[in-house]
Amino acid sequence: MKSSNRWIPALIVSMAALVVAVRAGARPAPTGMNEGANAPERHFLSADVRRVAVELREKAFAGTRAADWVRGLSDEVGSRLSGSPGDTASIAWALATLKAQGFTNVRAEKVMVPAWYRGVETGEVTAPYKQRLILAALGSSPPTPEGGLEAEVVEADSIEAMEAKGADAVKGKIVFFNKRMERASETRGYGYAVDVRTRGPVRAAQLGAAGVLIRSIGTDHNRLPHTGNVDYVADVPKIPAAALAIPDAETLERLLRQGKPVRVRFTLTCGQRPDAESANVIGEIRGSGKPEEIVLLGAHRDSWDLGTGAIDDGAGCGIVIEAARLIGQLPKHPPRTIRVCLYANEENGIAGGKAYFKAHEAELSKHAAALESDSGTDYPTAFGWTAGPSAEPFAKEVSAILQPLGAGTLIPGGGGADVGTIKIAGVPMFGLRQDSSRYFDYHHTANDTFDKIDPEGLDRNVAAVAVFAYCAASSPEMLERIPPDKREEPRRRPGTPAPSAR
Amino acid sequence: MKSSNRWIPALIVSMAALVVAVRAGARPAPTGMNEGANAPERHFLSADVRRVAVELREKAFAGTRAADWVRGLSDEVGSRLSGSPGDTASIAWALATLKAQGFTNVRAEKVMVPAWYRGVETGEVTAPYKQRLILAALGSSPPTPEGGLEAEVVEADSIEAMEAKGADAVKGKIVFFNKRMERASETRGYGYAVDVRTRGPVRAAQLGAAGVLIRSIGTDHNRLPHTGNVDYVADVPKIPAAALAIPDAETLERLLRQGKPVRVRFTLTCGQRPDAESANVIGEIRGSGKPEEIVLLGAHRDSWDLGTGAIDDGAGCGIVIEAARLIGQLPKHPPRTIRVCLYANEENGIAGGKAYFKAHEAELSKHAAALESDSGTDYPTAFGWTAGPSAEPFAKEVSAILQPLGAGTLIPGGGGADVGTIKIAGVPMFGLRQDSSRYFDYHHTANDTFDKIDPEGLDRNVAAVAVFAYCAASSPEMLERIPPDKREEPRRRPGTPAPSAR
Repeated sequence: MKSSNRWIPALIVSMAALVVAVRAGARPAPTGMNEGANAPERHFLSADVRRVAVELREKAFAGTRAADWVRGLSDEVGSRLSGSPGDTASIAWALATLKAQGFTNVRAEKVMVPAWYRGVETGEVTAPYKQRLILAALGSSPPTPEGGLEAEVVEADSIEAMEAKGADAVKGKIVFFNKRMERASETRGYGYAVDVRTRGPVRAAQLGAAGVLIRSIGTDHNRLPHTGNVDYVADVPKIPAAALAIPDAETLERLLRQGKPVRVRFTLTCGQRPDAESANVIGEIRGSGKPEEIVLLGAHRDSWDLGTGAIDDGAGCGIVIEAARLIGQLPKHPPRTIRVCLYANEENGIAGGKAYFKAHEAELSKHAAALESDSGTDYPTAFGWTAGPSAEPFAKEVSAILQPLGAGTLIPGGGGADVGTIKIAGVPMFGLRQDSSRYFDYHHTANDTFDKIDPEGLDRNVAAVAVFAYCAASSPEMLERIPPDKREEPRRRPGTPAPSAR
Repeated sequence: MKSSNRWIPALIVSMAALVVAVRAGARPAPTGMNEGANAPERHFLSADVRRVAVELREKAFAGTRAADWVRGLSDEVGSRLSGSPGDTASIAWALATLKAQGFTNVRAEKVMVPAWYRGVETGEVTAPYKQRLILAALGSSPPTPEGGLEAEVVEADSIEAMEAKGADAVKGKIVFFNKRMERASETRGYGYAVDVRTRGPVRAAQLGAAGVLIRSIGTDHNRLPHTGNVDYVADVPKIPAAALAIPDAETLERLLRQGKPVRVRFTLTCGQRPDAESANVIGEIRGSGKPEEIVLLGAHRDSWDLGTGAIDDGAGCGIVIEAARLIGQLPKHPPRTIRVCLYANEENGIAGGKAYFKAHEAELSKHAAALESDSGTDYPTAFGWTAGPSAEPFAKEVSAILQPLGAGTLIPGGGGADVGTIKIAGVPMFGLRQDSSRYFDYHHTANDTFDKIDPEGLDRNVAAVAVFAYCAASSPEMLERIPPDKREEPRRRPGTPAPSAR
């Protein structure tokens, strides 16, 4: 940006802030120190609140203990697939950690979750050459017949391309969705490609396919497949579905380019046990003025089973725990309560998010704001918000304080798969966009382990979340709710990022 | 190098070349075109030979078919562990490919090879926390007892550190060799670290250890372990040995740092079948003048079983096949025969190299020179030679022609694990040093697949090998043999690079 133009957005912010400040009865306060270059000249938040927010930012930016919490969850518990022993163990870990770190009202709120399990998974090209294929069952997939499923492969680079081939070409075959995900600093590459995983198996089954293989939705070239959930539907046959590691998908592609029929056999012994008991684990930093009003910070405690869930979503758990803990250590807590919720079952069901809605429906009107952290440790690059229009000065003021973290750009968005379940009640949603250039190298693979955690990125996210949470817990009034016509989430898949982050 | 000094090495080269040229009865020839900045002014090779060598270089540098041969071996055969079905299939592939590409005297020379197989392999931390460990049996390892081997872990960052702990600390334990390999453009990081794999299990067994786990000898952070061979010895108990993926080794390291005893269980069902029949596959570009004199180009046809052996050593096979094929397409073949040998069993035995020595002992005095390609597709950075002193002008002249490829630096070295078996007969050894900064991210892992092949690097290596082979097949006289006191290879492990490349 040219320096001669820098006053324009600042002026717009100032004017908007003035309108709101007058409406809220607040007096304009002097400009806070260190709030970043685009700080407004009139303020929605008090100088004291802004000063403390800046101090929180500086403290967290200089180094936090968030990596300790991620390491605990990753090393001492490990993978946490819903309904697995790791899921159960992580409930105890989360309760103990929140209690030890001074949270109050720490409890596990029961959630019944699906209990899908993986089992054995093998694959091979059987013709025209023998070649081992490394693959992973997609979440919720049924098993193959015993001895495996063998059929000729039909390749399509999208659902639409498969449907254009028609049922005659697909019936009895293994559909190979070979859709490439683009590497990008935002998650749009994922959003573009992931439909072959979430919806592909159902659409292929509708054309009579026997099974589905997809090119993993990821950006790496490791022989580590990316799992993720399939949205099977009740009235369409569930066919076995697996993700090929990207090098294996490319081998299959090269063999298909030779023009001879290619046959593949794959064997999955995955399946579904009866729903199991899990929990949303909650802890609070009690508000000093209006403790019944809540700022909700969410992350998900469950993970896929292949890795140890360090980036997805151990990182988010570490970020929200640490952000709240730092606020809890302040000499005076902010007026509202900061509630951390470590959700059950984000990856294959959102049962935790749905259970939270049910259990807390009566107090949703007291939820002042919500944010979810679920994008690993990559640097925050923007601050997203969705609320009533009069909340804009608040969002701008927070984004100004986030500027030195690199997250000062204000964008529409916020929320997430878990906290998004209370959007219907109008709760204002916030969030950080993170640079996801490398996130999808590891996402949903065995490579999601603690060595992938970037401590500096983790600290930047802690700083940003702490600033947001402290400001939201300190704003003079409740922020204006999301207008009723904007409370519906667009159709979104479990395990995919919020549309705002696409 | 400053330009004002550039004449000094050229002068030295010129003087040395003059001495040799006079001795060899050759007349000084005019400077060849395009031979690179450090071309000598007096020449050992004729202007015609140098011109053709430069043309070969230019042609290959602009693009070759080497990737086709690598793709064939990788996609249509796949992994080729000695004695496995892939090993057998690759013999037929190699014979057919060499015949189809116009080689003469194509044949498979029988070699009996060890037939080690992998089986199932699992690992887990059992205390103080449960944690899955991804590991791979090391080549030649015996199986664990049924149900696995469980014991407390003793960590050591070197063989010497383990020995300093003494037998009391090691007896009955699982020794965890946690020795880090440094990323480097040369292979010295590998040479430094690999002793814990090749010799560690024997030394640990001598102290009474029950088993060995090593941090994979590699430079990546993927959950894909690096296998490789163990040199078990006859009079020491063979104990089970496996490599942990690097993230898993780091998890184990972090758990050990907590100070509590750490127990691990691992299960291997690997084993050894009776020796199996394999083959060195040979094809020739027959010499036009002295066809009984041979320039030997070697690579190994076998691979480890985890990947498809694209970089190790499909790349080398592709490079030597293509270099010889390009020479075969010349209007006139060089005087000597260029023999390509795709060796059996480099990785776990060198049975192919030993069999070549036995089968060809009578004609080793007619072997003019040998080169092996076994470092993937990374760019060549130097040209190595080991021969009698009077061969130096030849080496310098070749290196001058390699200058535009980035491989103009002349270094001591050459040879390789397979062709090195005939060094004892004094056969001059040559080789390319390649930049191996990324090679050990993939080496001996499931990630060694065709997508890791860099076509431009492949072509640069083809160009360099073709130049060398053509010049060696065209030099006026046989090059001076390696002096008898320099023919012994230093003790070297199967599957490790030649000492020259360390």
